[in-house]
Amino acid sequence: MIYLDNAATSYPKPAEVIETVKNSMVFYGANPGRSGYDFSVKTAEEVFLTRTKLNDFFNGYGSEYVSFFSNCTYALNTAIKGIVKKGDHIVISSLEHNSVLRPVYALKTAGIADFSVFRADENEEILLDSFRKVFRKNTRLCVVTSVSNVFGNILPLKKLAEIAHKNGALFFVDGAQGAGVIKLDMKAMGIDCLCVPGHKGLLGPMGTGALLHKNLQFNPIVQGGTGTSSFDYSQPREYPERLESGTLNVLGICGLREGVEILESIGIDEVFQRESDLCELLFNGLKEVENVKLYRENYNRKKLAPIVTFNVKDYHSEYVSSVLNDNGFAVRGGFHCSPLAHKFYGTEKVGGVRISPSFMTDEKDIKNLLILVRKIAF
Amino acid sequence: MIYLDNAATSYPKPAEVIETVKNSMVFYGANPGRSGYDFSVKTAEEVFLTRTKLNDFFNGYGSEYVSFFSNCTYALNTAIKGIVKKGDHIVISSLEHNSVLRPVYALKTAGIADFSVFRADENEEILLDSFRKVFRKNTRLCVVTSVSNVFGNILPLKKLAEIAHKNGALFFVDGAQGAGVIKLDMKAMGIDCLCVPGHKGLLGPMGTGALLHKNLQFNPIVQGGTGTSSFDYSQPREYPERLESGTLNVLGICGLREGVEILESIGIDEVFQRESDLCELLFNGLKEVENVKLYRENYNRKKLAPIVTFNVKDYHSEYVSSVLNDNGFAVRGGFHCSPLAHKFYGTEKVGGVRISPSFMTDEKDIKNLLILVRKIAF
Repeated sequence: MIYLDNAATSYPKPAEVIETVKNSMVFYGANPGRSGYDFSVKTAEEVFLTRTKLNDFFNGYGSEYVSFFSNCTYALNTAIKGIVKKGDHIVISSLEHNSVLRPVYALKTAGIADFSVFRADENEEILLDSFRKVFRKNTRLCVVTSVSNVFGNILPLKKLAEIAHKNGALFFVDGAQGAGVIKLDMKAMGIDCLCVPGHKGLLGPMGTGALLHKNLQFNPIVQGGTGTSSFDYSQPREYPERLESGTLNVLGICGLREGVEILESIGIDEVFQRESDLCELLFNGLKEVENVKLYRENYNRKKLAPIVTFNVKDYHSEYVSSVLNDNGFAVRGGFHCSPLAHKFYGTEKVGGVRISPSFMTDEKDIKNLLILVRKIAF
Repeated sequence: MIYLDNAATSYPKPAEVIETVKNSMVFYGANPGRSGYDFSVKTAEEVFLTRTKLNDFFNGYGSEYVSFFSNCTYALNTAIKGIVKKGDHIVISSLEHNSVLRPVYALKTAGIADFSVFRADENEEILLDSFRKVFRKNTRLCVVTSVSNVFGNILPLKKLAEIAHKNGALFFVDGAQGAGVIKLDMKAMGIDCLCVPGHKGLLGPMGTGALLHKNLQFNPIVQGGTGTSSFDYSQPREYPERLESGTLNVLGICGLREGVEILESIGIDEVFQRESDLCELLFNGLKEVENVKLYRENYNRKKLAPIVTFNVKDYHSEYVSSVLNDNGFAVRGGFHCSPLAHKFYGTEKVGGVRISPSFMTDEKDIKNLLILVRKIAF
């Protein structure tokens, strides 16, 4: 099998990540932060080292402002619902995933907050202009994806953050596709809260995600045992406990730190370059195939994360991906939990065949994929 | 180290569980339920097998009514907040953990629902009588722990469920300490919703938990990508997707299934008997030590899960557990995220030293622990 669905979850995981997960179950097997005995303290220290690793990696506001979740979606829900108050207005982009759209829509249907969508155009001036126009007096929060999970567009986060802050709004980023892929520097980019999955670009195991923030006053959506302030019926106000109830996924968290360390050792720029080389090869090859529809003129790696989405003739993308599957390629077709993005690009009927290689993907596999697509498109 | 904190998380994990977690990262490494390619389908099948395993183990209402969470606390929050409506009244026991008390208290402070606490007395008649008296016309939900995490009391779930149902209320069970320890049969006991951790009695890895229910209409507290109904801005109404947003913890879920299988192969009754033998030995030994306070007259294994909690003189329990730690015993002292239970037993000042052995614990370690406690109490 040639795995080309790294935008869903990165695979294969580095051997060191797998080994760390395994070893953590043996060497860090206590419930962290609950007891004073050595084994529990040692486990809690490992968890804290991962907070510090993520805080450093994203240039965050302190290890205590890094909280762990089971995936990016839980982090995003916690961030969005934890900050929005009745009567607020929210701004999101036209490329948001359902992990942002659905919680925001739930707030709207519950009568808590309204929301508007700005046009995440490929032309940056049009995009920024659309963003500027969408603010209202009660706009409290903007939630913007770092990278479109369907079409790979990199959003101009720093410029958007500046505009959001000028308008008195908070700027939250969905790092689902950007974390570990493009440089996300919270302080330099003005990101007030960043939500990331552990199992995609950061190379960690599934079951991990994190929320990093600028000491914001989140109202937790989940309460429970925190190992602290046992006698307080309310959730403690201190971070990270405030957002972390119940037992943490220690093995996942340890594996995530190992994933980030491996990524750092290779270098995020190097990973980006290797994957972009593969995508550019694919894009340019597909461009020459009659009956293949790509959704942009050129492959511009300054504006694109390493994702190539295409369709063939008027075939449904699931048909094309199933033919690719029959020939040993694991690629995602259909819709990608991003209705806004599909509408924006006019692919709401056929979806899209999405190719997301890894830095470990072999160039010859991309070439073989091209041969196959040519046959399908013939 | 002699690990005696299995009520916090079971340790060591069976070698087969560790191996399964490791192998799952290799053989079931795709994002399940998101794509049609073989690797993703194969991964989704593994996840579904675990749903079926849990459904069978707890005699639930169908595999599709088993949803996965990162721990029992997330499952409980989802269950409680997903069913309670404005104006409802909730009933909980005087032995509830903060994983139940805090979400219920949060509903109260938000002005959504009020709650009452019934007296979970060791005398069953007093307990049931207290339960009967606490209902109001608007009582919609009872949430009761299967086993006290501090004092080990097993609650008479079947009788409580009958009373709850007669009063028109739903009966939810916190299985944090009971799952894998005592028999929890949803249908036979009248449990409408059962929340369990994967990493305690079920022998799975940390980062896992599940909610099983009787096809109830939960309003999800988290929304996001489900891989289904992509174009619907609302969460799908189908289970299990309705309660599962974002990428699942596949390795944890696979490891959980292995844990349950190992538990089944040994037999839950056999595990209970071995652990109860150890606890009875400990209890009877401690009973003879002057200056040791236990919180009941006798060790009655019909009414107790294998947990023994004690204190020495007027020492704070954290002092005693730290001395035990210095001598190689990992036991939890202090408070146990259960303020109601501590108040009920009058241990709100010193907490309690909690011993929770595993079926793998050696009898001689319990004897050595007794020798040590005698020295501390001298």
